[in-house]
Amino acid sequence: MRVVVDAFGGDNAPLQIVIGSAMAHKSLGVSVTLTGDKEKIENIIKENSLDFGDDLIIVDTKEIISMHDDPTSILKAKSNSSMALAFKELCDDRADAFVSAGSTGAIVVGGTLLVKRIKGVKRPALGSMLPSPDGYYMLMDMGANADCRPEMLLQFAVMADAYLKKVEGIDNPTIGLLNIGAEDTKGDELHKEAYKLLKDSSLNFIGNVESREMPKGVCNAVITDGFTGNIALKLIEGTSMTLLKIIKGIFLKNLKNKIAALCIKGDLSSVKKMMDSSEVGGAPLLGVKKPVIKAHGSSDAKAIMNAIKQAVKFTENDVIGLISENLE
Amino acid sequence: MRVVVDAFGGDNAPLQIVIGSAMAHKSLGVSVTLTGDKEKIENIIKENSLDFGDDLIIVDTKEIISMHDDPTSILKAKSNSSMALAFKELCDDRADAFVSAGSTGAIVVGGTLLVKRIKGVKRPALGSMLPSPDGYYMLMDMGANADCRPEMLLQFAVMADAYLKKVEGIDNPTIGLLNIGAEDTKGDELHKEAYKLLKDSSLNFIGNVESREMPKGVCNAVITDGFTGNIALKLIEGTSMTLLKIIKGIFLKNLKNKIAALCIKGDLSSVKKMMDSSEVGGAPLLGVKKPVIKAHGSSDAKAIMNAIKQAVKFTENDVIGLISENLE
Repeated sequence: MRVVVDAFGGDNAPLQIVIGSAMAHKSLGVSVTLTGDKEKIENIIKENSLDFGDDLIIVDTKEIISMHDDPTSILKAKSNSSMALAFKELCDDRADAFVSAGSTGAIVVGGTLLVKRIKGVKRPALGSMLPSPDGYYMLMDMGANADCRPEMLLQFAVMADAYLKKVEGIDNPTIGLLNIGAEDTKGDELHKEAYKLLKDSSLNFIGNVESREMPKGVCNAVITDGFTGNIALKLIEGTSMTLLKIIKGIFLKNLKNKIAALCIKGDLSSVKKMMDSSEVGGAPLLGVKKPVIKAHGSSDAKAIMNAIKQAVKFTENDVIGLISENLE
Repeated sequence: MRVVVDAFGGDNAPLQIVIGSAMAHKSLGVSVTLTGDKEKIENIIKENSLDFGDDLIIVDTKEIISMHDDPTSILKAKSNSSMALAFKELCDDRADAFVSAGSTGAIVVGGTLLVKRIKGVKRPALGSMLPSPDGYYMLMDMGANADCRPEMLLQFAVMADAYLKKVEGIDNPTIGLLNIGAEDTKGDELHKEAYKLLKDSSLNFIGNVESREMPKGVCNAVITDGFTGNIALKLIEGTSMTLLKIIKGIFLKNLKNKIAALCIKGDLSSVKKMMDSSEVGGAPLLGVKKPVIKAHGSSDAKAIMNAIKQAVKFTENDVIGLISENLE
């Protein structure tokens, strides 16, 4: 098993990406291909005494695709970027799976047009694993498709179901539709139509899920369009960060509070862990012919390691085979 | 000034509604009309020794419109409900403003079709005041219109601007568009078009606001369609509640933590206060000919008092006149 990692994608590239890849090699024995500036990568390996075994491949390029580049530039103007070359390794069968913490848009374009869609898939979508008090749930689509049609939402559910069965080992995943009310008459036209399609499907559909309930982890997968999904994903982050910042301010307010904070510091780290995306890995791009994982833009080494771990599970358990089968 | 309050709308009706109305009368000197079961209202007044001065009016009815009733039933089947009769008091000029913690859908239908739209308004919308670390911001539309067109979003911004100027006394309110990226090319078709309209308007438009930034209070009004707005509103609540529940669990974990919690308990209440919708009042339904305030469904007496306070400010400062002027 070989995973190609875009070493120059993400806020903390290349240092954290390279370290995380070495951690994945060490803990999983997975072979790694890194794309990006070879000299810089080799320096990082040397300076940090990283071990990739004897089968590390580095695909050298100085070009990078940034958050500010047009996502479609991956096809032409930036076809020599570290991300584009990583896709090339995957498409040419020199790697089994792909991981990048770079531009979401470019990953979606590259996945859709270079790796290409599984037969029957209308639009690939990103499924983000989000923490809940007792575990995780998948939010899908978390941002690949701003404009959606009802049939797309049904397909997102079919793909999420396959992923959760194969990668998370959940027997019969519960599927909810993110909506503005529990009743089946609620929502905009898109969600009302999607509700009907989901209800008539063979999926384990539990109905509409209100956003107030979602963070509790009321079902295994919450299905939504990419616009709403992206708003929701970032709002959970924003709300948690704002709240924790206020609480931190309280802890530092005076000596009494500082001492109190010290007492519960260890336990409080579990809250941060719950809100920490690096614990979960990345978001699989479901609906394309090979395993593509989008790691969080702010991924540190541990997050990259977890994303690679996820890519390995994704590949080994043939999620793509099941999606293909279920869509037929 | 007379405010009509639907005494039988909301989770805590009628007790908390009647008490809150009396609190508003006491602190603001406002005259109150209550609609609903007269005997029950009078018992509450007696049992709680409430004082409404000598000009309390009670409009007697046993009928209630519930969350489960079709919102349009307010027009016919439930035209004798406490909410419908409250609207009648407003429409027939026996009251200057309306407050209800009842069904959002019914308030939108009643506002739009009984109170009627201001000339030029395409669709009335609900503007919710949300807490940020340093104050409040308005989220609009928070759920009146699940399906929106770009022109509607522009009008929501014009109405929010007028409200914030008149009621909150903000000179030149900053307006942001809730979107999935900061760049003007981001979003679905609806939000891309709305961006252009807002940019070309004379409003103080600061561009797209990502949901990650929204809870920080980066602008005075965040404009969105009613579907996304409702998802966002309830997700902030859900995320905060889940997070605070986890923290509470930590505080109760063992004796050491319990003692630490005691030390900071007072300061922590400020976090709860920040997340507490009862502090803010209610959501004005903007775009209709008279002041209509939708109080939170779970409003307690204090929340009702604040909603009435808001209704008084809404009326006294002629928000409707400015909306009318600005839309021309």
